[in-house]
Amino acid sequence: MNTFGNIFRLTSFGESHGAAIGGVVDGCPPGLHLDLDLIQAELDRRRPGQSRLTTSRNEGDRVELLSGIIDSRESESVKITTGTPIGFIVRNADHHSSDYDDLRDVFRPSHADYTYFAKYGLRDHRGGGRSSARETIARVVAGAIAKQALSELDIDVKAWTAQVGSIACERDWTRLNLNQIDSSPVRCPDLSVAQQMEELILRVKSEGDTIGGIIAGVITGCPAGLGEPVFGKLHAQLGAAMLSINAVKGFEYGDGFASVSQRGSQQADTFNPDFTTATNHSGGIQGGISNGMPITFRVAFKPVATLLRPQATVDIHGEPTTISPRGRHDACVLPRAVPIVEAMAAMVILDAYLMSLKLKP
Amino acid sequence: MNTFGNIFRLTSFGESHGAAIGGVVDGCPPGLHLDLDLIQAELDRRRPGQSRLTTSRNEGDRVELLSGIIDSRESESVKITTGTPIGFIVRNADHHSSDYDDLRDVFRPSHADYTYFAKYGLRDHRGGGRSSARETIARVVAGAIAKQALSELDIDVKAWTAQVGSIACERDWTRLNLNQIDSSPVRCPDLSVAQQMEELILRVKSEGDTIGGIIAGVITGCPAGLGEPVFGKLHAQLGAAMLSINAVKGFEYGDGFASVSQRGSQQADTFNPDFTTATNHSGGIQGGISNGMPITFRVAFKPVATLLRPQATVDIHGEPTTISPRGRHDACVLPRAVPIVEAMAAMVILDAYLMSLKLKP
Amino acid sequence: MNTFGNIFRLTSFGESHGAAIGGVVDGCPPGLHLDLDLIQAELDRRRPGQSRLTTSRNEGDRVELLSGIIDSRESESVKITTGTPIGFIVRNADHHSSDYDDLRDVFRPSHADYTYFAKYGLRDHRGGGRSSARETIARVVAGAIAKQALSELDIDVKAWTAQVGSIACERDWTRLNLNQIDSSPVRCPDLSVAQQMEELILRVKSEGDTIGGIIAGVITGCPAGLGEPVFGKLHAQLGAAMLSINAVKGFEYGDGFASVSQRGSQQADTFNPDFTTATNHSGGIQGGISNGMPITFRVAFKPVATLLRPQATVDIHGEPTTISPRGRHDACVLPRAVPIVEAMAAMVILDAYLMSLKLKP
Amino acid sequence: MNTFGNIFRLTSFGESHGAAIGGVVDGCPPGLHLDLDLIQAELDRRRPGQSRLTTSRNEGDRVELLSGIIDSRESESVKITTGTPIGFIVRNADHHSSDYDDLRDVFRPSHADYTYFAKYGLRDHRGGGRSSARETIARVVAGAIAKQALSELDIDVKAWTAQVGSIACERDWTRLNLNQIDSSPVRCPDLSVAQQMEELILRVKSEGDTIGGIIAGVITGCPAGLGEPVFGKLHAQLGAAMLSINAVKGFEYGDGFASVSQRGSQQADTFNPDFTTATNHSGGIQGGISNGMPITFRVAFKPVATLLRPQATVDIHGEPTTISPRGRHDACVLPRAVPIVEAMAAMVILDAYLMSLKLKP
Repeated sequence: MNTFGNIFRLTSFGESHGAAIGGVVDGCPPGLHLDLDLIQAELDRRRPGQSRLTTSRNEGDRVELLSGIIDSRESESVKITTGTPIGFIVRNADHHSSDYDDLRDVFRPSHADYTYFAKYGLRDHRGGGRSSARETIARVVAGAIAKQALSELDIDVKAWTAQVGSIACERDWTRLNLNQIDSSPVRCPDLSVAQQMEELILRVKSEGDTIGGIIAGVITGCPAGLGEPVFGKLHAQLGAAMLSINAVKGFEYGDGFASVSQRGSQQADTFNPDFTTATNHSGGIQGGISNGMPITFRVAFKPVATLLRPQATVDIHGEPTTISPRGRHDACVLPRAVPIVEAMAAMVILDAYLMSLKLKP
Repeated sequence: MNTFGNIFRLTSFGESHGAAIGGVVDGCPPGLHLDLDLIQAELDRRRPGQSRLTTSRNEGDRVELLSGIIDSRESESVKITTGTPIGFIVRNADHHSSDYDDLRDVFRPSHADYTYFAKYGLRDHRGGGRSSARETIARVVAGAIAKQALSELDIDVKAWTAQVGSIACERDWTRLNLNQIDSSPVRCPDLSVAQQMEELILRVKSEGDTIGGIIAGVITGCPAGLGEPVFGKLHAQLGAAMLSINAVKGFEYGDGFASVSQRGSQQADTFNPDFTTATNHSGGIQGGISNGMPITFRVAFKPVATLLRPQATVDIHGEPTTISPRGRHDACVLPRAVPIVEAMAAMVILDAYLMSLKLKP
Repeated sequence: MNTFGNIFRLTSFGESHGAAIGGVVDGCPPGLHLDLDLIQAELDRRRPGQSRLTTSRNEGDRVELLSGIIDSRESESVKITTGTPIGFIVRNADHHSSDYDDLRDVFRPSHADYTYFAKYGLRDHRGGGRSSARETIARVVAGAIAKQALSELDIDVKAWTAQVGSIACERDWTRLNLNQIDSSPVRCPDLSVAQQMEELILRVKSEGDTIGGIIAGVITGCPAGLGEPVFGKLHAQLGAAMLSINAVKGFEYGDGFASVSQRGSQQADTFNPDFTTATNHSGGIQGGISNGMPITFRVAFKPVATLLRPQATVDIHGEPTTISPRGRHDACVLPRAVPIVEAMAAMVILDAYLMSLKLKP
Repeated sequence: MNTFGNIFRLTSFGESHGAAIGGVVDGCPPGLHLDLDLIQAELDRRRPGQSRLTTSRNEGDRVELLSGIIDSRESESVKITTGTPIGFIVRNADHHSSDYDDLRDVFRPSHADYTYFAKYGLRDHRGGGRSSARETIARVVAGAIAKQALSELDIDVKAWTAQVGSIACERDWTRLNLNQIDSSPVRCPDLSVAQQMEELILRVKSEGDTIGGIIAGVITGCPAGLGEPVFGKLHAQLGAAMLSINAVKGFEYGDGFASVSQRGSQQADTFNPDFTTATNHSGGIQGGISNGMPITFRVAFKPVATLLRPQATVDIHGEPTTISPRGRHDACVLPRAVPIVEAMAAMVILDAYLMSLKLKP
């Protein structure tokens, strides 16, 4: 379904070429001072047309909050949450539906065209409809609200582009300046690696092709004790959140896949007397519950399937046909996916925090 | 919480050293002919003491179904589901609680001891309590029921040990004989690789250490159209299911992490006239919805934290102490985790199948 | 939380004096031909200012659907659902927030002012905020969608004013012309009783007072087999739906409270050979599951607490004060509550129908 | 489905003539001192064969808790909850399945026989299967746990038989001695009315018939602020809980159906300076949220359909037949339903309490 979370919950709606993208944030704590400019700023990080790396579709993407808030005395752009649901919309201003007319009867390879048709018996062929990444606008808005709630708890969520194609930022996050994430258009805080990533993306783009990569994330300030022990393990919730983002193919936390060739004696995080650990192979989560150390994770994005060159495919009758490039698309989605990864992580952590309160009557 | 699934749902309970492990399977379709011997057979695959690779704890682990079934006319061991919830228990027969007395006031490194304490303010220190892998008994029982329902739909779920430490079975699943999975104690269908894995595990065990690995899985016969398009993407559900298993650190599907260094043009799965695809980089899921091709995924398991040699740690006051090896533990959990991975996959697919019915009134 | 339903789900938002009331309908079957005029017509039935019985607040209340639909070839006002969530909003056009300034620091008796403050620590004092009956706009929109889906299944939901104060329409529904419900402003299909009800309401209104009543409902065409047997009994879902409407104090189905003084032998609904029943004391539901007979129920509404005359109360410091009448309010909410009751019933039945599909793989 | 509640959740299973009735209580706060004898005492209140009013089926009904608890130092029968799920079972000891052989192909009037068959395509005909009131055993166990948690919060839940047939206890609860509820077999604290009720039940029983009635309830000590404002209004949750109990036909709270013929000016509960109210027409809930006053409600039970005399009905082919009385059944279920009503109310209030914690980070 289209609802995410247990207590802090986002229900989202909207297609690429419908009237609007929007959602309802339920379960937001009351009394939170909500800076609307910070929400818009996160949307702007996700917005196309930010740099020469991203599509030129200039959507504007202004969010309007419709409920759940009252005026503060601080400023016009600061509202106070009332605890009731926050409805919001972002109008789809820049329609080019006719760009997609020739896709009405064609299934694009490695897209959701065929699978939506198989599931629903019909589909909105314009720009991918609900399967378009424009859907993530609602995630970024809700995540920006969650981030502000986490900020009052001194919990911080950061994500960055850690790899594009084979160009990887090998440095551990503790040796990166995470305030520099937005200093490069590619959102890699190691600026020399960022430069190489940018060059690769432009080269791939010039070839009409696309490229994948890895986004890394870290959550600091998270107290010990968050997460549910069995099916709702904190990393299972984080993983589901990340895997629900378009183009994601894998998720790992802590030492992840690299841990499989290690011995248990190498992976043990021995305790300090204050219950912090000397190492953090666990990635801040043990037995599905946060241990107070930074939570680290990585998310694999495939190269997206929309190429800017002709491709062979079939139509809805199975007849061979060719599709021509159309619309405006990113050669690499990672730079714009960074705020989406942060948004999903923020929602998971806030929800886990609110869930944990139930246990202390 | 302790419930998994939307329509086909498992609610589980039980600790390592409590009276029993058990659960309730809700939403099982009525009229299913349920072979109790097949359920027990799956439990036996998970059971310790199967081979020299696994712990010698001989638990028996006999499952008793308490409700939701009526007698069939076929045989004593075949029951018919009624559509009402199926309660079941497996008694914990082999208690050695006193093995754990010296752990009452100690936090073991990289276990859930400290995090449970942080979450609940108290913990059941005997054998890990709820964080023990004995909890997975309930998953295997529910998964064995799901498998039988899937079997009537000609959907098949298979998992196997694909890597132990650095020893990997490189062959694609289509070139493996998946009927040979149980032919080796390590549950790798490539028997020569299995032999090397087994030797590695025994060597690690003799050192009192542990080793991780990767379990691969494939789901065949799954129709196109399963999965929810946004937050409930089929691979997000599968990922959450796998990440909820003890010791799992990562999940990928299709080409997974390897896809990040590829170009979009290399990853495109072009259609055949019957809407199958010439390649399967997508891993059977596109836009979060199954496309009818085999669903492929991989799950990373860390080396488990329970060593069979002394380890330095701290007690609940933060004072340094040493823990001695105790209990009986696997040096590598993968052989016994294979049926757990299959069980979780089966539950996810059946649930997605039942969810998909809602859309055709 | 602000979500209703299991598969067909409404998530709603909005306050009386915020920017908009709206919601998201998730789980609507794809391929449904949705007549937007029928949705607006239901909203118009709920709208204030319809007759001299209702408040003069002329809100307009135009609904805009934002997603989940594509154009049909039939007409501009007929859309086709895609199976993705349907977001919608109704702008709050007619703000008189300043009407409520003197209520900022006052708790009105028998309203939600004090309880919201106790729950959230703050409240939106303008027109009751989220506790305002304007919230029901979202229910009516979602219910109008559900009604159209039910219509394709030949299931019909009707409600009417059966009692106002002590003036009751005693006739059984089978002896009423339910096509006449909207023929009187009070929405009682027995037009002579309707006349008396109308006179009573006008008299009560002239006294600055309010009056309660009973709305009756009947659902015809519902197949046998809907509902969940234990906690989700069909009448429990219906009851919860009705009790969630503002001002409702009671719910009964079938013979309801009147059955308590009867004998079991009097209440038995004996079967006809086609499994219909000779009588319908059960009200169309047995053991929580529909039996194919008409589903009958009744809903008690208290006289609403907003009087049009001065009332003694306390301020937020507990000091005695007097509130003066303000805003525009109905002396009797039942005429406008009829479409709300129908909307909630339609959602419950459609959801139960969609849930029942899960059982036939 | 078979799960009740949001945070404090009961998932139940079991049929009348299966192996056991049981359930899983999830979300119980950790650190609660749980007296097993008090749980058993509640079960004993529900048990048949307590008095000459109830069936003679002597089931014993001993509950066994299987998980989620550790030993206390107080006594053998006091355990401490760990926050993990509490699994429990009650064996069905007293099988007389053969009593029901002649019902295999018959639908009893006003039972769930036909509706279960319509829903599932098959049914467990023995003693009603899942539709048997034995299912409520799980509710009473979970409710007894909830009551103990509420007791630590000084919240008290009481229910009693307020009416049998036309014999009603007219006195307001504040003028009854609620410690006398269990002093009469009929569980009416007004002992002279209880005597009349008892006589009526015995007379009805001697006629092979059954009789209905009303159970009243009051919850004291509940703080202001519990309940969700829109769909999850506290009284909607209470209503759904009560309507899910076998044989319940109606629910009302506060002045309920009687309020409909009153004026708003008569129903207003004016505030005292401490925010208590001078009257309690509202029944302790305003706008769906508790206001700190006692929560009052009433539940209508129909006369149950199982008569102790022959009845005309049809078989599964629609052919007329006659059923003879069988099994052992209560002529009036209210005395044994009192602990069930209390159990459901306790679960609702505890769940609402735990939900309310989410709002104060």
